[in-house]
Amino acid sequence: MLTLTTFRSVPEFAIGYVRDLRVRWALEEAGLPYLLRALAFEEAATPAYRREQPFSQIPVLQDGGLTLFESGAILLHLGERSPALLPLDADERARATMWMFAALNSVEPYVGNLVNLVVFAAGEPWAAGARPATEAMVDKRLRDLDDWLEGRNWLAKDFSAADILMTTVLRLMDNMEMVERYARVRAYRDRCMARPAFKKALADQVAHFRQAQEAAA
Amino acid sequence: MLTLTTFRSVPEFAIGYVRDLRVRWALEEAGLPYLLRALAFEEAATPAYRREQPFSQIPVLQDGGLTLFESGAILLHLGERSPALLPLDADERARATMWMFAALNSVEPYVGNLVNLVVFAAGEPWAAGARPATEAMVDKRLRDLDDWLEGRNWLAKDFSAADILMTTVLRLMDNMEMVERYARVRAYRDRCMARPAFKKALADQVAHFRQAQEAAA
Repeated sequence: MLTLTTFRSVPEFAIGYVRDLRVRWALEEAGLPYLLRALAFEEAATPAYRREQPFSQIPVLQDGGLTLFESGAILLHLGERSPALLPLDADERARATMWMFAALNSVEPYVGNLVNLVVFAAGEPWAAGARPATEAMVDKRLRDLDDWLEGRNWLAKDFSAADILMTTVLRLMDNMEMVERYARVRAYRDRCMARPAFKKALADQVAHFRQAQEAAA
Repeated sequence: MLTLTTFRSVPEFAIGYVRDLRVRWALEEAGLPYLLRALAFEEAATPAYRREQPFSQIPVLQDGGLTLFESGAILLHLGERSPALLPLDADERARATMWMFAALNSVEPYVGNLVNLVVFAAGEPWAAGARPATEAMVDKRLRDLDDWLEGRNWLAKDFSAADILMTTVLRLMDNMEMVERYARVRAYRDRCMARPAFKKALADQVAHFRQAQEAAA
């Protein structure tokens, strides 16, 4: 059985954006059922959890005796179980995997910096000064991605785990009017988000965190 | 045949730290011979190269008809050819892969931000203000890594591609006295750098760029 670990509750602004969404979406695409394990924030800092996840983060996926962290590694593992996530052909699989790493190492770090400035460091005196360079780097990556998407529906040949990762990276900029500057990136993101598996995963995450809010109220 | 693409020349401070080092090191560990393709900076921006590498970066690895970018994806691909890079056992392989993603998505982005502040944005008026928070995030990751390394020689059970990625991430902070705060991380980095394959790869990269300097002089 597969067990997905996420937090029990998160701040309002994070609902719909928590990284367990990547795994939920992949599990829906693959048609794999799973159980949920919900952690209180303070449990994530315990020595027991840090033996599973040394950085006190979620998601974690347990698959029998195997416990994995890092959303990229979890999707790669699930991709070995389902061609809905990664193609069977070795070269095509390598190309999809390449785009998984690109989403996580060539795009997300810059998007994360912008989100940090806009959301978390907004009140810091240095944030306004840092913004132009931070935004310019995101623009550069989005422009490159926009060019790549010319004549393509997905990052690799078919929809894959790479599109799950890239879409969730792009969604971190919801309400920032960044993705909207790039017609192909915007259409690509919307195409990915129109998938039933995405909608189911998002609804499930939102329901999970709303339930925690109601229980606490 | 394997062909590794890097730049023809780089600024002095980058010599020994260019990301082709990750691939060179992996190829040495695996005992795989390779050819080198050296690009001028302006070639990296051409449409032809951007069809290979949409972000105009290096390294790229060509393996027969397959062209891969992203150092993580390249090391994963080479790991499928050599147990010197990734274990054959499926669960152990998943754990090593998990640490590849951790190096690239949970550690490198924060290290990259610190390097950016110290090296590239040093003269910006906002850089000094941004430094404490940036350094604190790197410290947090190094502390977590230090705890993980208690009783371990490598990130996973045996030396793997994950150690190649993590070591090259840690080396970005050479001369910053950050890694030096964490005895286990420091010893781990030094243990990785003591490997003959690392030394050969580093010497080869340095020789390549020195040759370009001499040719230009």
